[in-house]
Amino acid sequence: MIQRKNENWFRMLFIWQGSVLPKILPRLALLFMFTVAVVYFKNDLFYKIPLNPAPFTLFGIALALFLGFRNTASYDRFWEGRKLWGALLNDTRSLARQFLSLSPYERDSKETTAFINLLIALVYALKHQLRKTDAGTDLYKYLDANTALELSDVHFKPVILMNKLAAMLKEARQKGEIDSITLVAFDQNLDKLSDIIGGCERLASTPIPYTYKLMLHRTVYLYCFLLPFGFVDSLAWMTPVVVTFIAYTFVGFEAIADEIEEPFGLEPNDLPLDTITRMIESTLLEMTGRPMPEHIAETGFILT
Amino acid sequence: MIQRKNENWFRMLFIWQGSVLPKILPRLALLFMFTVAVVYFKNDLFYKIPLNPAPFTLFGIALALFLGFRNTASYDRFWEGRKLWGALLNDTRSLARQFLSLSPYERDSKETTAFINLLIALVYALKHQLRKTDAGTDLYKYLDANTALELSDVHFKPVILMNKLAAMLKEARQKGEIDSITLVAFDQNLDKLSDIIGGCERLASTPIPYTYKLMLHRTVYLYCFLLPFGFVDSLAWMTPVVVTFIAYTFVGFEAIADEIEEPFGLEPNDLPLDTITRMIESTLLEMTGRPMPEHIAETGFILT
Amino acid sequence: MIQRKNENWFRMLFIWQGSVLPKILPRLALLFMFTVAVVYFKNDLFYKIPLNPAPFTLFGIALALFLGFRNTASYDRFWEGRKLWGALLNDTRSLARQFLSLSPYERDSKETTAFINLLIALVYALKHQLRKTDAGTDLYKYLDANTALELSDVHFKPVILMNKLAAMLKEARQKGEIDSITLVAFDQNLDKLSDIIGGCERLASTPIPYTYKLMLHRTVYLYCFLLPFGFVDSLAWMTPVVVTFIAYTFVGFEAIADEIEEPFGLEPNDLPLDTITRMIESTLLEMTGRPMPEHIAETGFILT
Amino acid sequence: MIQRKNENWFRMLFIWQGSVLPKILPRLALLFMFTVAVVYFKNDLFYKIPLNPAPFTLFGIALALFLGFRNTASYDRFWEGRKLWGALLNDTRSLARQFLSLSPYERDSKETTAFINLLIALVYALKHQLRKTDAGTDLYKYLDANTALELSDVHFKPVILMNKLAAMLKEARQKGEIDSITLVAFDQNLDKLSDIIGGCERLASTPIPYTYKLMLHRTVYLYCFLLPFGFVDSLAWMTPVVVTFIAYTFVGFEAIADEIEEPFGLEPNDLPLDTITRMIESTLLEMTGRPMPEHIAETGFILT
Amino acid sequence: MIQRKNENWFRMLFIWQGSVLPKILPRLALLFMFTVAVVYFKNDLFYKIPLNPAPFTLFGIALALFLGFRNTASYDRFWEGRKLWGALLNDTRSLARQFLSLSPYERDSKETTAFINLLIALVYALKHQLRKTDAGTDLYKYLDANTALELSDVHFKPVILMNKLAAMLKEARQKGEIDSITLVAFDQNLDKLSDIIGGCERLASTPIPYTYKLMLHRTVYLYCFLLPFGFVDSLAWMTPVVVTFIAYTFVGFEAIADEIEEPFGLEPNDLPLDTITRMIESTLLEMTGRPMPEHIAETGFILT
Repeated sequence: MIQRKNENWFRMLFIWQGSVLPKILPRLALLFMFTVAVVYFKNDLFYKIPLNPAPFTLFGIALALFLGFRNTASYDRFWEGRKLWGALLNDTRSLARQFLSLSPYERDSKETTAFINLLIALVYALKHQLRKTDAGTDLYKYLDANTALELSDVHFKPVILMNKLAAMLKEARQKGEIDSITLVAFDQNLDKLSDIIGGCERLASTPIPYTYKLMLHRTVYLYCFLLPFGFVDSLAWMTPVVVTFIAYTFVGFEAIADEIEEPFGLEPNDLPLDTITRMIESTLLEMTGRPMPEHIAETGFILT
Repeated sequence: MIQRKNENWFRMLFIWQGSVLPKILPRLALLFMFTVAVVYFKNDLFYKIPLNPAPFTLFGIALALFLGFRNTASYDRFWEGRKLWGALLNDTRSLARQFLSLSPYERDSKETTAFINLLIALVYALKHQLRKTDAGTDLYKYLDANTALELSDVHFKPVILMNKLAAMLKEARQKGEIDSITLVAFDQNLDKLSDIIGGCERLASTPIPYTYKLMLHRTVYLYCFLLPFGFVDSLAWMTPVVVTFIAYTFVGFEAIADEIEEPFGLEPNDLPLDTITRMIESTLLEMTGRPMPEHIAETGFILT
Repeated sequence: MIQRKNENWFRMLFIWQGSVLPKILPRLALLFMFTVAVVYFKNDLFYKIPLNPAPFTLFGIALALFLGFRNTASYDRFWEGRKLWGALLNDTRSLARQFLSLSPYERDSKETTAFINLLIALVYALKHQLRKTDAGTDLYKYLDANTALELSDVHFKPVILMNKLAAMLKEARQKGEIDSITLVAFDQNLDKLSDIIGGCERLASTPIPYTYKLMLHRTVYLYCFLLPFGFVDSLAWMTPVVVTFIAYTFVGFEAIADEIEEPFGLEPNDLPLDTITRMIESTLLEMTGRPMPEHIAETGFILT
Repeated sequence: MIQRKNENWFRMLFIWQGSVLPKILPRLALLFMFTVAVVYFKNDLFYKIPLNPAPFTLFGIALALFLGFRNTASYDRFWEGRKLWGALLNDTRSLARQFLSLSPYERDSKETTAFINLLIALVYALKHQLRKTDAGTDLYKYLDANTALELSDVHFKPVILMNKLAAMLKEARQKGEIDSITLVAFDQNLDKLSDIIGGCERLASTPIPYTYKLMLHRTVYLYCFLLPFGFVDSLAWMTPVVVTFIAYTFVGFEAIADEIEEPFGLEPNDLPLDTITRMIESTLLEMTGRPMPEHIAETGFILT
Repeated sequence: MIQRKNENWFRMLFIWQGSVLPKILPRLALLFMFTVAVVYFKNDLFYKIPLNPAPFTLFGIALALFLGFRNTASYDRFWEGRKLWGALLNDTRSLARQFLSLSPYERDSKETTAFINLLIALVYALKHQLRKTDAGTDLYKYLDANTALELSDVHFKPVILMNKLAAMLKEARQKGEIDSITLVAFDQNLDKLSDIIGGCERLASTPIPYTYKLMLHRTVYLYCFLLPFGFVDSLAWMTPVVVTFIAYTFVGFEAIADEIEEPFGLEPNDLPLDTITRMIESTLLEMTGRPMPEHIAETGFILT
């Protein structure tokens, strides 16, 4: 995900990186050339095509309305994804704080270390599950070899890791280190964790209904390639400029909506899961007074 | 529910499957032919009809606004349905985790097996209730014959199954296996389960007010069949193309809104309840270390 | 509330029942005749009125936007009302389940029967309070004569019935049948019940600000009766058709918004409180294994 | 807040009271006279002003969209204010019910009376804080002189009263009348009360960003006073009628949005805090079997 | 953040301070001069540019729709930021109330003072973290030198301060001053605090996707600088007035959306974090009967 400070209003007009232009430029170029051809052959090939701006005004506004609906739905998904990963930060912090203050274990005890390691491994496992990448290496950093190996055969890795957190607490209860009341307090934050994991899976597995996307995609492009015929009579040689400008917005909006709709992907405007993961890792380590690992010290980890 | 990877922007223009076109094509064809007739008989039958694009522009935009409202309402229902089934996944996982970590029963004890079986049966029962299909066969897989038989006479099957979960916990409490605090922790997740079941019933039983649908349906079609008269003078033989293109969007949007409005149905864009059910089944079995049944191993179960 | 299966797209165009037409037809007829008069006297009485479609296009779209806002607000109220009654179903089920599994009383004990009866009476009392109808007869079905009589003098009947539920639980606590932890678990669901009752009262007592409704109502009708003058020059004898068609949508949308805005009323598109009440009644009776009363057996009770 | 039954659709067109007209009529009259002057001097003073409807159509629709955004934001604030006061009703009822059923005190004990009195005083104190009026007299009705006097120096009166509720419960705990579990159950409802009080303060202290209001206000009036020039050529003597009609909606909508934006004020469309306060007072008194005070018996208190 | 009483509708038209004008005036002046040049050289340099209002109407409305989407997203962020700081007020009050009523410590004990000081320091630390300013001085006011020094090396200061609150409670539990049930009640409000801190970090670290902003920014300015060519033929010397007026709204809306989008900043329309911080400080001090510090007495602290 690209983050830049707001620049001067004038300079912002010429920014290339982080813009949707690189993606849609070829299509716009094609449309531009097509429009030039329409203008050139106007009195020739196309002289019989009786089109004028009226239906395009009506249709363009209707299309903008439907695109607005699509954008809102996509942005809501983006923001829900961000909220879920924000909740993951909050909830792992809460579980860490509970382990420090509700259990009798010290900050540097091996139990605390193991609990925190499970939490961090869970976050990595969730990231890899959502991106369909291999969790292997990252899990070995925070889990012992046996557990990491056992997880490699498992489909829902974060859920199984959550079960391991619960098992640690059950053991503490059975040893009499914590009472039922405390165990249940942990359990409520595990419930929240379950909701977060499931929420991410829901978002990743259920896109916006495909027909919506298909229909809007088709309508946007068909509309843009019909536009030249509607304006060529009145705008003459300005037609390519105006048509490309209008298409830039319609096509661009559709392209952005398409990109942020799957917030867990790897496209430029998707959520910065790597940074958030590192941020969770570092805040949990800081809470328990452990040193930052190299890969964080190198890249920096502060998101805010 | 159809899920496809986003294809190349150009190829997407020609996709047939998963599009709303198969459904609305006959209507569009009818409209196309009707428009051709209007163009053909323009100077003949219809020469006296004094219509022009002005009222159609005004009305088309108003119609697009009202359709936008309908789409938002339908999509919200679709997404609420998905959230409810996502919550069902989360809550059944939480109940399973609680049974593993708050009760003294082992992962492979007969109590755990019975508890998990009740949870899976409940999910199947809910799916069948919402689709008004027969739960019989699926219930026999996870319930003993007596319980399955007893359920066949019952109207609200998932509720009765939830009561059986509660009864198991009451028994554990009476045997002294769990204390009051733990019982209440389970009870709170049963409350959530009750909210999910009732939420699904609410969505399934209360459609968008029928008058809304009726009025929009009527207005959309009446509008499309009046369009040719408004544009025939200025667009001449291009009228059928333009009218059909505009109608494609209006009629298509109305058709999609109609389809996703009842998310628990069996139309192509409805929720994939079968897959979600299998996913819940497999994650609960994995959590308790039980083998996957054949019907899952065959079809695969990973939604994400 | 009218519920029908979606019919064939073509037949839906001619449905009368459940449509808003019966309500607005007289007004549309009046407008139609008025427009005919405007067309007829165009060169006579009105020949000096210099109006054209331009201001009506601008204004019609603005009006559609404001109507869209009104519709969203009305529909949100409708859906919030439905959610509250859905929550009432969920919460009464949860309280019933708690009484069965957290208290020592058997399913057919007189305590269970009394508790369930109080719950059902509360639902009836709420329905009558929201509709300002007399709860008398319905309360006598599930309460003993003394309690029913005592309630007749009370203003907030559901609240007092909720207090009686709480009093039963206090007694059980004082007898030592349940402990503090369990009592508090019930208490949390009583809190939810309190929120539901108060939520319904809020919705019923606070309409959309009256000025909004007044302004939109006035603007819609004034707009429709000015429309003929704007289009008579260009549309000639088609003016009545076009004006009535446009008015159908504007007037119709306003009328529907007006109807669903008070979801607890008795108009055709209001919430089916009678059916939902019967559904709650029957599910609570089924949970405790009691037979369905006659009035349910007769009319059927399944909403889903 | 004005509440009236929906009248006949025809009579609603002529209602004066409760309409926004009284407020904006002078401005509309000014605009009407200005437009008459523009028409009258058209060929004289203004004959050189080259304006036509095109930019006004474009701009009017954009303006309607931005006004729609403002209306939604204002209405959301209105409805959030109403929800907060609805939650106040629910939560005070819940606290009263808890005091009756979780504590050992009888309904007519002096402890119950004192607790309920504190709750009612808190509601009055919140109303006065939000309206910046003097709480003095109302507090003396339900508090002893000492407490009332002590409160007069306090800035956040409802918070201090909430602390007094908590102190009563702490005392009961220290006397052994209630146990820790019960104390915490009360405490959770005090948390909710804290959220409600703070929510009201947030709404009252943070208006919609002032620049938004300023810009829309300015644009609406500038637009309306430029309108005559755009339409005078085509509409001639009808210009004042059409311009005033369009302005009625734009100016009216802006005025309503301005009014309901601060829902705790004293304008006609603000929330009926006096009635809601009396309703809470009466329902709490009814729950504890106390007689209604005179000021309620006189004015009636039923909101529903 | 600027707060002013609503002034007379007429005087509001001429307000300068608190308006977006100071910011965008240079750009509007540039556009005005550019438009004057276009008008002046119309028959000269630009006589061949064939543009008319039609495409600008279509495009202007589409642009207004997309700007509406951007405004809603920005305003939602602003309001979410405000809600988070409102929740911070509520939650710190709740924690203070719990310390007063659930723990055995007196209002003026050194434990209470230390607990409240930690809460206030946490609020200051959060404000400084969000604004990337130095928390140093403010922390020394409420923390002993050691703790303040220790914090200076820490990245997530509010989280570490929350841990210190938890550590105080753990100590009280270990001394037997509070029981498990009470400890867990505190813990739930610490969970909420964790959610608030993380929510603020999420809002501050994740802006609206940069491409959205870039595209809208570009489109708005490009549109405004093309407008003169579209209207110069029909509006002649009025073009600069009309174009600047339309641009004022489009450019102004974009500028406001840009400003409130980051609600924790220091621009005129951002949230008044300083005032809210002082308000929390003063309400917590009032709750525990401590005198107001000088910096509050001087500037006043009442937000409501």
